[in-house]
Amino acid sequence: MSTGRRSKFLLYICRMNRLQLIQQIEQKKSYLCVGLDTDITKIPKHLRSHPNAVFEFNKQIIDATKDLCVTYKINTAFYEALGLKGWEALEQTVNYIPKDIFTIADAKRGDIGNTSAQYAKAFFETLNFDAITVAPYMGEDSVKPFLEYDNKWTVVLGLTSNTGSKDFEQLNVVNQVTNNEEFLYERVLRKVSEWGTPNNLMFVVGATKARDLEHIRKIIPEHFLLVPGIGTQGGSLEDVSKYGMNKDCGLLVNASRAIIFAGENENFAEEARKVAQEYQKEMSGYFTKA
Amino acid sequence: MSTGRRSKFLLYICRMNRLQLIQQIEQKKSYLCVGLDTDITKIPKHLRSHPNAVFEFNKQIIDATKDLCVTYKINTAFYEALGLKGWEALEQTVNYIPKDIFTIADAKRGDIGNTSAQYAKAFFETLNFDAITVAPYMGEDSVKPFLEYDNKWTVVLGLTSNTGSKDFEQLNVVNQVTNNEEFLYERVLRKVSEWGTPNNLMFVVGATKARDLEHIRKIIPEHFLLVPGIGTQGGSLEDVSKYGMNKDCGLLVNASRAIIFAGENENFAEEARKVAQEYQKEMSGYFTKA
Repeated sequence: MSTGRRSKFLLYICRMNRLQLIQQIEQKKSYLCVGLDTDITKIPKHLRSHPNAVFEFNKQIIDATKDLCVTYKINTAFYEALGLKGWEALEQTVNYIPKDIFTIADAKRGDIGNTSAQYAKAFFETLNFDAITVAPYMGEDSVKPFLEYDNKWTVVLGLTSNTGSKDFEQLNVVNQVTNNEEFLYERVLRKVSEWGTPNNLMFVVGATKARDLEHIRKIIPEHFLLVPGIGTQGGSLEDVSKYGMNKDCGLLVNASRAIIFAGENENFAEEARKVAQEYQKEMSGYFTKA
Repeated sequence: MSTGRRSKFLLYICRMNRLQLIQQIEQKKSYLCVGLDTDITKIPKHLRSHPNAVFEFNKQIIDATKDLCVTYKINTAFYEALGLKGWEALEQTVNYIPKDIFTIADAKRGDIGNTSAQYAKAFFETLNFDAITVAPYMGEDSVKPFLEYDNKWTVVLGLTSNTGSKDFEQLNVVNQVTNNEEFLYERVLRKVSEWGTPNNLMFVVGATKARDLEHIRKIIPEHFLLVPGIGTQGGSLEDVSKYGMNKDCGLLVNASRAIIFAGENENFAEEARKVAQEYQKEMSGYFTKA
């Protein structure tokens, strides 16, 4: 299918562009992303025997938090681990999320061009997510097929929140033009930002590296950043907001386990709401100062 | 689950260790991997209206090629693009492959530790593949959960066959110990090989970079290499075999489209067999010289 024909076809399945996303953030005074890392071994006991336990859990979490967050991020691994039934719960979940809330498939895909095009089709057409996370290692033709979609978003890994980020992301690479050294992740941010625009491209930058956000904002001042790592992983929301926010907010800050597994009993959704509310309240304070 | 308990549990679902793989290669005089990149828009017209077209196509391809290859590689993107029905065809396909043939999920997964553990569960337990391809960008904790399984294989991206490999894989990085420069992919090979052994770790090295294999073999002399890029992508089987083979063969050379889409009509499986046979014949020549 040509890009032109695909773009036209996709007009009616577009869910959210940059302006609409910013409006949502302003209305809700929130840049919270709730991560649906729905580990079936961690959901409340009374739900585990439910015939559709994962979706039922997600449904209650979504109902309890949808006025507090602007994004849901579905971590595909937890669904794939359950096989066919998991993939079904994934489909049901993305369809259940209200249309004015941004949806991210946290899938970290990326392959040679013709294969990435199939992943783009899977997540942007078959599943109708707004965005997908993509791994940059294989370079331009592995990322471009995702960027070809109008009003869909590609979220490329920059500097991640895990300890392993030191192994490769923080290696010194030689800039062939200036002959200076820079970190690999900086090179990724610079290079990948040439392939898309702040209207279709975001980057993952971990909250556990919050101080680096000040520097990162010099490389990519306008792009939205998806920031995992607050909550269970220990990153500071205050630091992330201080160093990472731009004039459009420019942040989607994710918490997964800290919200969805806040409670273990029948009132788990209420407990999740309480934690989401704390984050939203804290965010509203930083947001007004932006 | 502790590693010890997991290992024990997995003993009975183990499909193939290194010795068994080498035996298969010797018996068949083949190191051919058939890539099941089953694009539903490219399968023969008479099959497209079949209620289970993808699996039906794969079944006939497997029946026609199973004595000529030692591995099937299932490219998950083509199945995910079809949603639930695609995931079902994927499950059916991996279950249909004879147990003495090595199976690779070409999924290029990788995420923070707790998420990679879920991907490992998805592909090693729920789907019972022998191997999965993994992207290295996020470092050690993103790769280790795959390596924790006994008699399962992790196939990490080294130098890929696509044009985008120049963007990051072939960047010069500074070796902090020697202060010399090396390519990022070389660093990946060196570093990742510390995390596993030639008995549970392989690397992807593209056939379009065949001359580099001589050099790569100095870094990782013993590991098996999964080599995509012959056939449609234009890599040379002769060069790959000349520069990449080690004393145990150490190669799994993949062809996907060139084999599975060799024919467009009702005799497509026969046509696929003919191409697979040509590869196997050529391989048997290189193999005896090893």
